[in-house]
Amino acid sequence: MQKIAYLDNSATTKPCNTAIQNVNFALLDTWGNPSSLYDMGFRAQMLVDDTRKVVANLLKCREDEIYFTGSGTEGNNTALLGAAAARKKRGKRIITTAIEHPSVLETVKRLENDGFEVIYLKPQANGVISVDDLKNAIDKNTILVSIMLVNNETGAIQPVKEASQIIKQSGAPALLHCDGVQAFGKMPINLSELGVDLFTASGHKIHGPKGVGVLYIKKGVAIKPLVTGGGQEKNMRSGTESVPLICGLKGAIDELGAINENLKKQKDLWLYAKEVLLDTNLVTVNSSDDALPYILNVSVAGYRSETLLHFLEAQGVYVSSGSACAKGEGSYVLREMGLSRQLVDSALRISFSRYNTRDDIDALKSALISATQKLRRSNQ
Amino acid sequence: MQKIAYLDNSATTKPCNTAIQNVNFALLDTWGNPSSLYDMGFRAQMLVDDTRKVVANLLKCREDEIYFTGSGTEGNNTALLGAAAARKKRGKRIITTAIEHPSVLETVKRLENDGFEVIYLKPQANGVISVDDLKNAIDKNTILVSIMLVNNETGAIQPVKEASQIIKQSGAPALLHCDGVQAFGKMPINLSELGVDLFTASGHKIHGPKGVGVLYIKKGVAIKPLVTGGGQEKNMRSGTESVPLICGLKGAIDELGAINENLKKQKDLWLYAKEVLLDTNLVTVNSSDDALPYILNVSVAGYRSETLLHFLEAQGVYVSSGSACAKGEGSYVLREMGLSRQLVDSALRISFSRYNTRDDIDALKSALISATQKLRRSNQ
Repeated sequence: MQKIAYLDNSATTKPCNTAIQNVNFALLDTWGNPSSLYDMGFRAQMLVDDTRKVVANLLKCREDEIYFTGSGTEGNNTALLGAAAARKKRGKRIITTAIEHPSVLETVKRLENDGFEVIYLKPQANGVISVDDLKNAIDKNTILVSIMLVNNETGAIQPVKEASQIIKQSGAPALLHCDGVQAFGKMPINLSELGVDLFTASGHKIHGPKGVGVLYIKKGVAIKPLVTGGGQEKNMRSGTESVPLICGLKGAIDELGAINENLKKQKDLWLYAKEVLLDTNLVTVNSSDDALPYILNVSVAGYRSETLLHFLEAQGVYVSSGSACAKGEGSYVLREMGLSRQLVDSALRISFSRYNTRDDIDALKSALISATQKLRRSNQ
Repeated sequence: MQKIAYLDNSATTKPCNTAIQNVNFALLDTWGNPSSLYDMGFRAQMLVDDTRKVVANLLKCREDEIYFTGSGTEGNNTALLGAAAARKKRGKRIITTAIEHPSVLETVKRLENDGFEVIYLKPQANGVISVDDLKNAIDKNTILVSIMLVNNETGAIQPVKEASQIIKQSGAPALLHCDGVQAFGKMPINLSELGVDLFTASGHKIHGPKGVGVLYIKKGVAIKPLVTGGGQEKNMRSGTESVPLICGLKGAIDELGAINENLKKQKDLWLYAKEVLLDTNLVTVNSSDDALPYILNVSVAGYRSETLLHFLEAQGVYVSSGSACAKGEGSYVLREMGLSRQLVDSALRISFSRYNTRDDIDALKSALISATQKLRRSNQ
């Protein structure tokens, strides 16, 4: 079997052993309904709450500020729609960035259709939004600000803490939501210090199973639930909890190791990847040097992303084009950063996990050289 | 270890072997992101679509009418809110029943707060709503009717097909939604014949994993999505699909066997349970004889449900009180059926699966006799 270099960890990750073990424990041993009023139910609820503890510990917040959802997307929808519904009488302005994940952008578009005014902050050339732009945009009518912590295509770290200070200084009745999906488990996060009211994360980007997400709601902050019914998760997310997936998430977090040490190793790998790829004289680098070193975005001018992607795949190397969601249209994130059409159309996102090694980068380099040679030949 | 008689299968079920195997296959082998543009992604998407086929085959509908959700509750929320949002300009009346699951009742309450007029049809003494009541309630202003197929507390089968005919005859611009959670996999369902526009189901009531549900949207019927983002599930439910749970659902369906044969066996078991329990002279039966024989609701006059439940649990017998959601308040379903306070407060829901045997019923009988004796003694 061909050796695989999986370098698309920002799309999804391979579930780790502890995550899989935990899923199975819940399926086989603790399959009661957490709402049931007997021991089998209590034990299931305890497993759910064990994960809550572990998540709260990771994010440096209170356990009762953590709610489980079915995905990062559901968390973002709940946060945005729930905050807007709770604050609609206090103002109509929402501020976000032009480079958010579609689960934020599509959802604020719905709010725009419902009569809210949405302002999209544009990134600078380095992929980071300017806090001055936020200062200029915020007013007494602003009820919600949504800024991601780490951009999913470039790894650019956004000034979320500064945003929280600007909101406070402005006196606006705005809640601050932060899509933390690409940051969760990959960089130190202290939610009390970050100053956000709402924060979302997902399990399957950190070697947990697909189908479980986390929503943090700061104590004292009230938003409306998206899904109503039996009142699970303190009325914030009705529906029988997916105990197996929630347990799987705990397994993924338990196996994370030391975030800062991982980060140091990733930075080495990221620098190595950048050096090796620049050495080929085939690429330009779109991620800035202070990006989170789990994502390296490059362009291979003259070659279309999708074509390259398939040539790389044939050699067992998996990366993604700039944006998996905007199929064929090219990355809006890179476009907003001011990249030329040629660079946008030839972008590759390389995204790492702690299981990647320099061998994977070397495999990527060889595959990339070979792909461009074949494509050049076929163009002759 | 004490032998267990688990008779709370309408709350949740033990995942079956095939379901667990399928979950593990997806976790270990097919963990790619279904949206990824390479083989690992395509294979994951194929697994999702394999389940879609199996669900469509079970429900006798088209594959492209099936969408996956994170729970039955999410499906009900999506159907109701999505239908109301799509049709709000055509009318303001919504008709449902007073005995729906909280995921329907709480959600129509939100619509009521948003300006819709909601009419709640009351059940007759047998737990079934009257089609005449629906005829009287429906008008040209009615945009949505939501009626469950099988009541989750009594097993009462509701006249959904008749409702669809009444809607057609009325000329109302109403969509018909049916919460099918307690019917799915337990009785023959032919969605094209049933005449519904929207239908919801859940995996964990039929020995599948918790965290996966099904929403049927009839071809040609347009509703608004609840969760927006990357556009998964043809824009109806954004968020990375939980491939493991969707595969688990397929495993549960594959292991169902012949629905009609199962139903016959359950009817025998149900009749046996009814006879054995009536023989004790302790109970009255609240479920009618034509209820779906997966649920038997009884009252043990003079004993509070919660107290009984714990005494039964101590003897390894698991049932639920009338309603797990309305903790301590007593079942609104039984109250709406006109039962006395005493009968409501002493109700037990016994719910079966194909894994139950007469031994479980015998264990329930002994435990019930023993529980009532102990409680009587302690009251002396």
